[in-house]
Amino acid sequence: MKSLNPVFLLSFIFLSGSLFSQVPEGVTHSGQNTGQKKFPLGSYIELDNPTSTPLQEWKKNNKTIVGWGDTNKRYKKEEPVSKNTLSKKIELQAWRGEKVSAQWVVSAGKKDLNLSVELSDLQHKSTKSRISKDNMESAFVRYVLTDELNKDRKGACGHRNPANFDSTLVADVIDHINPNLEVEKNTSRPGWLSIKVPENVSPGLYSGTIKIRSASKTIQKLPISINVSERVLPKPKDWNFHLDLWQNPYAVARYYQTNLWSKAHFDALKKEMTPYANAGGKSITASIIDRPWDGQTHDPFNSMVRWTKKLNGEWEFNFDVFDKWVEFMMNLGVTKQINAYTMIPWKLTFAYFDEASNKTQYLETQPGEELYEEVWVAMLSSFSKHLKQKGWFEKTYIAMDERPMETMQETIKVIHKADKNFKISFAGAKHPELYPYVDDYCLSMESSFAPEVLKQRKESGKISTFYTSCSHTSPNSFTFSGPAETEWYAWYASASNLDGFLRWAYNSWVLEPLLDSRFTTWAAGDTYFIYPEGRSSLRFEKLLAGIQSFEKLQILRDEFKQNNNTAALKKLEEIESQFTLQHLETASASEIIKQARKKLNSL
Amino acid sequence: MKSLNPVFLLSFIFLSGSLFSQVPEGVTHSGQNTGQKKFPLGSYIELDNPTSTPLQEWKKNNKTIVGWGDTNKRYKKEEPVSKNTLSKKIELQAWRGEKVSAQWVVSAGKKDLNLSVELSDLQHKSTKSRISKDNMESAFVRYVLTDELNKDRKGACGHRNPANFDSTLVADVIDHINPNLEVEKNTSRPGWLSIKVPENVSPGLYSGTIKIRSASKTIQKLPISINVSERVLPKPKDWNFHLDLWQNPYAVARYYQTNLWSKAHFDALKKEMTPYANAGGKSITASIIDRPWDGQTHDPFNSMVRWTKKLNGEWEFNFDVFDKWVEFMMNLGVTKQINAYTMIPWKLTFAYFDEASNKTQYLETQPGEELYEEVWVAMLSSFSKHLKQKGWFEKTYIAMDERPMETMQETIKVIHKADKNFKISFAGAKHPELYPYVDDYCLSMESSFAPEVLKQRKESGKISTFYTSCSHTSPNSFTFSGPAETEWYAWYASASNLDGFLRWAYNSWVLEPLLDSRFTTWAAGDTYFIYPEGRSSLRFEKLLAGIQSFEKLQILRDEFKQNNNTAALKKLEEIESQFTLQHLETASASEIIKQARKKLNSL
Repeated sequence: MKSLNPVFLLSFIFLSGSLFSQVPEGVTHSGQNTGQKKFPLGSYIELDNPTSTPLQEWKKNNKTIVGWGDTNKRYKKEEPVSKNTLSKKIELQAWRGEKVSAQWVVSAGKKDLNLSVELSDLQHKSTKSRISKDNMESAFVRYVLTDELNKDRKGACGHRNPANFDSTLVADVIDHINPNLEVEKNTSRPGWLSIKVPENVSPGLYSGTIKIRSASKTIQKLPISINVSERVLPKPKDWNFHLDLWQNPYAVARYYQTNLWSKAHFDALKKEMTPYANAGGKSITASIIDRPWDGQTHDPFNSMVRWTKKLNGEWEFNFDVFDKWVEFMMNLGVTKQINAYTMIPWKLTFAYFDEASNKTQYLETQPGEELYEEVWVAMLSSFSKHLKQKGWFEKTYIAMDERPMETMQETIKVIHKADKNFKISFAGAKHPELYPYVDDYCLSMESSFAPEVLKQRKESGKISTFYTSCSHTSPNSFTFSGPAETEWYAWYASASNLDGFLRWAYNSWVLEPLLDSRFTTWAAGDTYFIYPEGRSSLRFEKLLAGIQSFEKLQILRDEFKQNNNTAALKKLEEIESQFTLQHLETASASEIIKQARKKLNSL
Repeated sequence: MKSLNPVFLLSFIFLSGSLFSQVPEGVTHSGQNTGQKKFPLGSYIELDNPTSTPLQEWKKNNKTIVGWGDTNKRYKKEEPVSKNTLSKKIELQAWRGEKVSAQWVVSAGKKDLNLSVELSDLQHKSTKSRISKDNMESAFVRYVLTDELNKDRKGACGHRNPANFDSTLVADVIDHINPNLEVEKNTSRPGWLSIKVPENVSPGLYSGTIKIRSASKTIQKLPISINVSERVLPKPKDWNFHLDLWQNPYAVARYYQTNLWSKAHFDALKKEMTPYANAGGKSITASIIDRPWDGQTHDPFNSMVRWTKKLNGEWEFNFDVFDKWVEFMMNLGVTKQINAYTMIPWKLTFAYFDEASNKTQYLETQPGEELYEEVWVAMLSSFSKHLKQKGWFEKTYIAMDERPMETMQETIKVIHKADKNFKISFAGAKHPELYPYVDDYCLSMESSFAPEVLKQRKESGKISTFYTSCSHTSPNSFTFSGPAETEWYAWYASASNLDGFLRWAYNSWVLEPLLDSRFTTWAAGDTYFIYPEGRSSLRFEKLLAGIQSFEKLQILRDEFKQNNNTAALKKLEEIESQFTLQHLETASASEIIKQARKKLNSL
C-alpha cells in the first residue's frame, strides 16, 4: 500500500464550496485525475488501486470464479476470492415486507469480463405465488478510496494529511445505476442483490436463479431461495426506531450543479433522500441559521430561514425555503420530526441580510447576552407563529449539539421566553440537569441513561437515543469499518431500551464521493452513508438490516407479552444480552449478529 | 522634511472599511498615535509636524505678529510670517448675495496663545445699514498631513508607499467648529473669515473690526471693509454652473459610526452635504450597484438599490434607500440631477441577494453578453417605472465613467432597450461617436469639445463639462495644490463655453481625514474637498469663489448683450482669454485670477 500524493489535496483544503468551479475536471480530493468529468452521474470510473496486485495468487486462480459470498465482507479488488469461501446457492430468511440482501463475487482470473446480471422471479415451492423480479434490485459493489484509523488506533478524529495515512480501495458503494461493468482480468468484483419481499405474498420457500453474464454469455447461474415468514414487517414510516441521519441538501445541489431549491435540485434530492425515507428516517434536518456547524463539511449548510434586518431596524424572518424543504421531505415519508439547527453554532456569529447596508452582516453574540436574547426571542416568536400556521409546531425541535451545559441552560431560557412549549433536541454529553428540558436527548455511544430515567422519558413521550462519532474506533461507519458494525447499532438500541440512533452526516459528501471517501478531517466515510444518485452502501444496507431487526424485536416482545409467553421473552432477553459494548470487545459484530438472527428466526 | 514610518500603513492597506474597529484609537493612516479618540468630532489635535522648526528665524521674530494675509497662500506652521507681507486692514469686493473670504495670520513668536476671534457687525459708511455678524463665520485654518506629486512630477496617480514621499503639514482645513485654539510658541496659525453678504443690504462700503484675542485679552484689532456692489448674485440653487462632486454617504456613516440611513446618519449627512448644496451642487450621486468603483475609496459605495433574485427565479429591485438618499439631497437644495452609477463597474461583477442560497451572489457578465442584457433590462425597466412614479425620470441619468467606447455603445443599446428615453451621463475620453447619446458628457481637462459641438449640445439641452484627475499636476485640488487652482476651474469653464466641472470625490474620506489627507493611491487630498462636521477647505472655498465668478460672468454677458454693450463684452472676452491651460504654464492661477477679478469688478 502506498500513500497518495498530497500535493493537490493541500491546495484544495482552503477552498470553499463556491470556489469548486476552479477544480479541474475529474481531479479528486486525492489529486488523482481519472480523465472523467467532475461529479460524474451515470457510469463512472473508479480510481486506480494504490495496492499492487498479487500476480502469484492470480496465477494459482487463473479461472473465472463466481459464487455467493458474505454480505458482511468487503472483498478486495486486487485479490482472487478463494473458491471454497463461496457458495453455489444461498437461502435467505425474511418477514413479509422486509428487505434482504445477498452478495455475490466474481474473480476474473482468466480474462476481462463485461459483467451484467439477469434476474428472474422467485417461485413459491408449492403454490403459484411468485416474488416478481420487480421486487429485486441488482447492483455492482464499487470500490472507493478509504484511509484508516488514527495511527494510535484510539479514534479517527482530527485534521488529516493524506500523506500520513495508508490509502486503499474498499468495496462500499452499491451501484444500482449501471446495468453492466467492465471487470479487468486479475481483479475481483462483488455484486449486491436486494429483495424487498412484498407484504402480500404467501409465506413459504421461494426459489429462483440469477444469471451472472459476461457480454452475451451466462458465466454462472446462481440459485437463490428465500424463506418467507408469515410475520409482516410494517412499512418504514410506521417503524418505531428513531433514525436521525442529518441530511445535507447543499451537498446535493453542488454535486448535481443545480440552483438551490430549483426543480432540478428537488429531482436530485428525491434520489438522495428516498433511501433515508425507506430506512424509516424520522427527523428532517433543517438549518435555521447560516453555517450551524461553521464550515466543517465540504458543503456548509446555509440558513433555510432568511434573516433580514429591515431598513426601519425591525427583524424579519422568512420561511419559504424552510417550508419547501420540510414539505418535500414530508412528501417522501419523513413526517415525524423537524430538527432546527442551531441556536449555538460552532462559531457564535449569526448572519443576516441588512437592508440598510445592502449586505450580509454578522451578529456576534452568545447565550447569556442581552443581544442574543433580543434577536433569538424575535426569531423564535416568528418561527413559533409560522410553525403553528403550518401545523408543524408539535413536530419541531430547536436542536443543539455538543455544547456545554451552562450554555444549554442559558439557551433554554431564551427558547422558553419565546414560547414555553417549544420542544428541544440535544445531542451531546450526559447532563442529567438537562433531562427535564430536552425532549429528544441523544448521548454519545459510551454514555447511558439510568434505567429509571429511560422509563420516565419514554412515559412522558421524550426520545432517548445514542450517536457515534469519529471518537469511536468500532463499531463505526467508516468506509473501512466492518459492514456488520452499523447493523449492530439497532440491536444495541433495542437491548439498551433506547429509541434509536443519530448520526451527524447522512450525505455530507466530500469533493468526489463516488471516488474518494476521504476528507480533510476524520477517517474516510465519516461524512456520508449514501452516494450520489441514491446509491446505497454496505454500511447503509447493514444499518437498515439492523433497524428491521429492531422492529422485529419490538413486535415479538409485544406479542410474547400479550400471550404471556415468558419462555420466548426470556429468549429475547438472551439475544439482546449479547449486544453490549463489552461483549463487542471479545466477539465480532458479524458473529454476534449471525447468532442473534438465528435465534430470532427460530422464535 | 522626513517621511513618516510606513509600518502601520502597510498593515492597514488591506483592511476593508468594516474592519476598522480593529484600528487602535487615535492611530492614523500614517501610524501616528495622537492619543485622541479615532474619528474625532468637535475639538481635535493635529499631527506632529514632520518639518523641524527654524528656531533661528523665530529668534529674529520673537513677537506676536498678527495681520491680514492672502487667501491664496498656505501659511506654514513652523515658520514665522513676515510682518511686511501682512496688512493691518483689508477691503473686499462683493456682489450682494455673494460669499467672500479673508485670511488672517498669527505668528506666536513670543509665547503660547489661546486664540479666539471676536466678530462685530459691519457698518455702512453713510446709512444705518449693517451687515450683521450673523452673516460672518470665523474659523481657524488647521494643518493636515499631505504628500506631494509623483517623483517624476508628471502627475499623482498610482499606489503610494508613504516611505517614498515627503510628508508635510499643510494649511487646508477651515475649522469653524472650535471657538478657540491653543497656539504654541514658535508656530504660526491662520484664521479664515467668511462673509455672506445679504441680498437685501444697501450697496456701498461697510466697515468693522474683528478682534484677535488670546485668552481674555485682545492682541490685535483687524479692520475690515467690504465694498458691496449693487448687483445681486442669485441663490446657489439658481446658479447655472453645473457642479458635480460625487458624494459618498458611506464615508460619513463610517466616520460618525452611525447605522446607515439612520436618523443619526442623516443628521451627520446634513452637516457634510450642506456645503455642496451651498456651492450650487447640481448632481446627486447615487450608487445603483454594489461597489461601482470596486474598492478604490477607503469607504466603498454600497448599492442604494437592493437587487434580489427571488426564490422563484425572478428579479426584484427595491429603491427604498435610493429614495431616502435622493429625497434628503433634494431637501438640501440639490434638485437638478440624479446620476446613477454604474452599468460598467471597474470589476464586472454585480452583487445581488439570492433568496435560494440566502447569500449575496455575484453575476459576472459584461456589456455585449446575453446575461448582461437580461439582468440590466430587468433592472432598468423597474428603475424607469419607479422614477416615473417619483417624478424623477427626467432628472435621472444612467452614469458611467472612464470606460472604452465599444463598451459604452453596447451599454447604451441595453439602456435604450429598457427605456429609450433614459438619459445618459458619461465622464471619460473624447468619443465624438458617443456625443449624440450622452446627455451629460464630461471630458478630462486636457480634452475639448469642438465649438460647434458645444453649441449644438447647449441648444439641445445637453450638458458638457470637464473633470480633473490624479493625472493633472496643476491645476488640481490636492491638499498641497495652490488654493487658487480650484478657483481657476469655473473661470476656465466660462472661457471654454463649458457648463461646469465634475470631480469624482467630494468626501471620499481617508481613514482620519482631519489629520492625514494622504491615501494609499494618488496624491493627498485627491479623495475629498470637505472635512468632517462640514468643515470646508481652502480648496473648496476657492472652488466656490470661482463658481461665483462664473455666475457673474454669465449675468454680465447677458446684461451687456441685452444692452448691446460691445465694449464691455469685449472686456469680458479679454478677461476670459486669460483662462487657457497654455497661459497657466507661464503664469500662476492666483495672479491670473487677481487680474481677472480686478477687471471684472470694474465692469
